[in-house]
Amino acid sequence: MNLLLLEPEELHPDGTVVVSGARARHLVDVLRVQPGQSVRVGMLDGGLGTATVLSHDDNTVALQCVLGAVPVRPGVDLLLALPRPKVMRRLWAQLAALGVGRILLTNAERVERNYFDTHVLGVDVYRPLLVEGLQQARDTRLPLVSIHRRLKVLIEDELDTLCPGGARLLAHPDSEATFIAAVTAHPRHPADSPPRVLLAVGPEGGWSDFELRLLGDHGFQLVGMGARTLRSDTACVALLALLHEAIRTSG
Amino acid sequence: MNLLLLEPEELHPDGTVVVSGARARHLVDVLRVQPGQSVRVGMLDGGLGTATVLSHDDNTVALQCVLGAVPVRPGVDLLLALPRPKVMRRLWAQLAALGVGRILLTNAERVERNYFDTHVLGVDVYRPLLVEGLQQARDTRLPLVSIHRRLKVLIEDELDTLCPGGARLLAHPDSEATFIAAVTAHPRHPADSPPRVLLAVGPEGGWSDFELRLLGDHGFQLVGMGARTLRSDTACVALLALLHEAIRTSG
Repeated sequence: MNLLLLEPEELHPDGTVVVSGARARHLVDVLRVQPGQSVRVGMLDGGLGTATVLSHDDNTVALQCVLGAVPVRPGVDLLLALPRPKVMRRLWAQLAALGVGRILLTNAERVERNYFDTHVLGVDVYRPLLVEGLQQARDTRLPLVSIHRRLKVLIEDELDTLCPGGARLLAHPDSEATFIAAVTAHPRHPADSPPRVLLAVGPEGGWSDFELRLLGDHGFQLVGMGARTLRSDTACVALLALLHEAIRTSG
Repeated sequence: MNLLLLEPEELHPDGTVVVSGARARHLVDVLRVQPGQSVRVGMLDGGLGTATVLSHDDNTVALQCVLGAVPVRPGVDLLLALPRPKVMRRLWAQLAALGVGRILLTNAERVERNYFDTHVLGVDVYRPLLVEGLQQARDTRLPLVSIHRRLKVLIEDELDTLCPGGARLLAHPDSEATFIAAVTAHPRHPADSPPRVLLAVGPEGGWSDFELRLLGDHGFQLVGMGARTLRSDTACVALLALLHEAIRTSG
């Protein structure tokens, strides 16, 4: 935990907060905080800052917080064909740590229908995992999550509202296009700097031909991912890293 | 499983093989192979090719194999400060899938000594996980693994023999250098094309100042990894993806 994240309702008007549970145990047992010591603190979807430890016992820590600027929402959104529940569970924290503004989980021909019944898609399961990832990466901006059972409806009717503007990329093994070329090629709007990029990542078996045409017809450009076939979670981490680096390099 | 990998001793001189266990179950239950059908096959550290199913029952599959060229060993080696056993267990298959020629696991000041006692470092545990990663990525080249309890001895006395030539990079949060710049900057030897690159990834708490100097004194150049702090396994996947992409782009 590189950042202590607070829920908005936890912070008292005078800037003090009392945390308990896992966060308190981490502060006391791992960081071994003492009164007067400073720790990095942030408010979920709010500012980053510093908290000074006022007092602690075994189960609670009282802190005085000073919060600063709110971090910019990550410039990358992810459209992901829902992977197996076990893989999805592993991904939540990693996605939040790598930095995504929005996670759109979608059905596809090669996604098993029963994946949508898993508790891993319950907000009570994934929100703490997202928070864990933010605390790792020292960010406060909780990714927005939406779940879509019909890809065609999502792409044709909803996507322009959910992800307006920006580049749309589709990671595909057959493409030779590099991320840096794909990001640089996209005309940047003045109000859209750094650019937003929506990245589509398909299911283990790949998108169907119909789905590739549907995505292509709605502005998704193919981008290469190398010759090696990766597991969904490895692929997501690798592709998000490449995309962030391409944006950083082109900026 | 995108590739059926065989041990050298499994293949009969006439090119036939009988597989059982998990691989046979995967062929029968998941791929639902029938006699006459072809599947991708490879020999560990040997050629890639095609196998035709001769016959099968519930527990075994007999195949006739034709093997071709041996894939080139991945041009990237990884020097990794040993992470927690749980994280290391998750990493083995992902490292093999992403492609590494050699994995050097090392001690460091901020690595807990007892991490070296874990069964996750036993060859009987990690070899099947590496094979799983190769089968995912359709590669046959098993990464070479070595375990080093003294970083100083490794760097000063052993590294030039284990990893001769090539670039040496050290992923560091403070560096602004991009992977593409770091890979391109390194003079390429004619006999060394594509170039070999050795990437050092530190422990969760980072390398100590002494370790940074030691690595710097032995040719490691700093390369940036973005502002976000990532968990060891996420960082390894992200950094290896960036390095492979930089080599692909500069080639």
